[in-house]
Amino acid sequence: MENNEASNEFSGNLLVAQSGGPTVAINSSVAGVIQEAGKHPEIEEIYGGLNGIHGILNEELIDINEEKAKTVAELKHTPAAALGTCRYKINFNTDPEQAALDMDRLFEVFEAHNIRFFFYAGGNDSQDTSNKIHQEAQKRAYALRVIGVPKTIDNDLPHTDHCPGYGSVVKYNATTVMEVGADVGSMATDEGSCCIVEVMGRAAGWIAAGTVVAKREDDDPPHIILLPEIRLDEEAFLTRVRETVDRLKHCIVVVGEGVKNAAGEEIGADKSRLDAFGHAVLSGAAETLRELIQGKLNLKTRTVKLGYAQRAAAHYASATDVEEAFACGVAAVKAAMEGKSGQMVKLVRLANEPYQWNTSLQSLDDIANVEHLIPRAWISEDGFMPNDNFIKYVTPLIQGENPVPTLNGLPKFARLVKEPVEKQLPPRA
Amino acid sequence: MENNEASNEFSGNLLVAQSGGPTVAINSSVAGVIQEAGKHPEIEEIYGGLNGIHGILNEELIDINEEKAKTVAELKHTPAAALGTCRYKINFNTDPEQAALDMDRLFEVFEAHNIRFFFYAGGNDSQDTSNKIHQEAQKRAYALRVIGVPKTIDNDLPHTDHCPGYGSVVKYNATTVMEVGADVGSMATDEGSCCIVEVMGRAAGWIAAGTVVAKREDDDPPHIILLPEIRLDEEAFLTRVRETVDRLKHCIVVVGEGVKNAAGEEIGADKSRLDAFGHAVLSGAAETLRELIQGKLNLKTRTVKLGYAQRAAAHYASATDVEEAFACGVAAVKAAMEGKSGQMVKLVRLANEPYQWNTSLQSLDDIANVEHLIPRAWISEDGFMPNDNFIKYVTPLIQGENPVPTLNGLPKFARLVKEPVEKQLPPRA
Repeated sequence: MENNEASNEFSGNLLVAQSGGPTVAINSSVAGVIQEAGKHPEIEEIYGGLNGIHGILNEELIDINEEKAKTVAELKHTPAAALGTCRYKINFNTDPEQAALDMDRLFEVFEAHNIRFFFYAGGNDSQDTSNKIHQEAQKRAYALRVIGVPKTIDNDLPHTDHCPGYGSVVKYNATTVMEVGADVGSMATDEGSCCIVEVMGRAAGWIAAGTVVAKREDDDPPHIILLPEIRLDEEAFLTRVRETVDRLKHCIVVVGEGVKNAAGEEIGADKSRLDAFGHAVLSGAAETLRELIQGKLNLKTRTVKLGYAQRAAAHYASATDVEEAFACGVAAVKAAMEGKSGQMVKLVRLANEPYQWNTSLQSLDDIANVEHLIPRAWISEDGFMPNDNFIKYVTPLIQGENPVPTLNGLPKFARLVKEPVEKQLPPRA
Repeated sequence: MENNEASNEFSGNLLVAQSGGPTVAINSSVAGVIQEAGKHPEIEEIYGGLNGIHGILNEELIDINEEKAKTVAELKHTPAAALGTCRYKINFNTDPEQAALDMDRLFEVFEAHNIRFFFYAGGNDSQDTSNKIHQEAQKRAYALRVIGVPKTIDNDLPHTDHCPGYGSVVKYNATTVMEVGADVGSMATDEGSCCIVEVMGRAAGWIAAGTVVAKREDDDPPHIILLPEIRLDEEAFLTRVRETVDRLKHCIVVVGEGVKNAAGEEIGADKSRLDAFGHAVLSGAAETLRELIQGKLNLKTRTVKLGYAQRAAAHYASATDVEEAFACGVAAVKAAMEGKSGQMVKLVRLANEPYQWNTSLQSLDDIANVEHLIPRAWISEDGFMPNDNFIKYVTPLIQGENPVPTLNGLPKFARLVKEPVEKQLPPRA
């Protein structure tokens, strides 16, 4: 086999794997890869790598052709990473020796299983890994087509209009804010009360900002959204809480976990206080705000911390998101069949009303280690609320439901049988 | 009008109100009251009391007949308390003087608006209030029929098989545990990790226990459930976490917020540590367990605190729960029309497979201030998991979905116009 990427004779086995924090839609991308791959006779075997690069280095591959077609279809409503995921990074900067060993091993595994198509679904770090693998294949003259599939609830990948996984987390979180707001609002009596909903997002506030769609009328929750992009002005924040409670008798605050104080330190990580084991107290942004509001304004305040629940809430996923994630998987395979490598699939917005989109490609060189934050022009002047620019952007992404079949009253998710591919190599050194 | 409860001539206006912490199903009970009331010509006007007794004392009544029938039907999928709620208690023990003033005022309001039917949906405290109003009416020879409608996610009312609101919180929480479990399980690599999901339940563990239904196979999450009924044995708990992580590489723990240590103190309230404002740190049960696990076992541990989200999650309510809540509202009106007063509607389980139930009545004297905990025989010997007795009990309660219509990708809930009934009295002293 020659490394002639445009050749019609190019054939071999496919390996798909997942990496980084899971989302509701990442399995839909894998389903897209698998279903599209089945249409191309040049793709001989379809393998899944368990736990991303971490498992591939251990030659932990499964034979996707042993899975029922029904199970593959069920991936479209199954949360988490059905193939398993990892945070393993091949890092030539911090540990070049280990990175070189990893690369050698990886290509041994590829060669042993005649892997010629590699699809890696993930966020920033994972696209960086894909790029390194693509470059390494060229260096080694190993015929391989590498396409990155975008995924991250954080929505912080550059060049793509948005990231698969993001629309669903917004839909679920905004729904939760509506419901919690109705609850707190219905208990509102003269004393007033607050509720702080903490959502994910360390550097980028896309997730927190997304909850603005819960607001159908001016006084609807959320009343304040705190974004990691904007440093917290404690006085202005407390004044806004007070004003809101005076008017509505309650106040719903959404906070991105990575919000920073005026000094640029995360408010959720208080290094000055130690827990019983001598570790810094990481009470979280919501708890810190609760203490502040109760301490300074003497208002009853409760917190909600959605944590992993928000990125796993398949039971209320966005149909648009799931469909786009699937399309990214399909597009990745099509790109590889056209001879492309070293590219990431991206989503392109063609129109807003009605929403129209398609997929395209972007060189992985342009993706790795670039972080996409919310433009300042999409946030109100006072910094407490995304504005109409943002609302126009996010609204199409949450449209449509993706109902999950149930069994005995609870969701029924895909369970892969994970038939192992026979190992050809000695264990990793 | 005479206080002849069985008389056919008994007629007047109806007042329905809500009290205590909201649930997903409490508006369905109100819909049941309203729709059934519409069938009885003896019921002249249908009023809602805003914010329970708190608003009724301020003569804050709304005219339900001004609401669209469609809005009333939408209450069946609307979370929180559409009429508003309160935690106000008429307490003859702690403040007999205020209680006597309140009762005088309450009956002034009733009389001014010819209220002859009073329905109060709520938990323990609210049933106590209903009973006191019933007794007071008899003492004053004021013709009034008072029926309590059960409601509480805590499921701790006695005599009723279970409480409207409970099935839905179990369905949502168990779904969340499945989803979070899939997420954490898919990230499980050799280091191992834990996730603690904190759910409501101060004294009774019904909510925490309910998440056991997420467990379809032995190794499915949750792996440990900590109930407020069982004091935490720290060593046994850590051993169980360690064993689980050794076997599965991850461990999902569900904890009821009110879990107590060996000394009987809530583990979530650490009075020995003060926050920046000098208040005791209320980090919550999950955060305390996270510190413990990270400190003693050195395992990466994350927390989820569902808070109000769990009792407001209308988007994934149990159809069985919503239907039963509605039936309780209907049964309350029917009981009043039969001349009953001083009763609470209860749910009676007739059979488990297939599940059959109906409503009945229980004297409010038997309800007030009795707390119903999980029987010890429904929990495993080691205390870490509800057993088959519990699973048989809870499974029917989560069956069926209750889809919420959407608008622009998010749930569309009922919004009452809340047309005020003209006040007849001077403001409350």
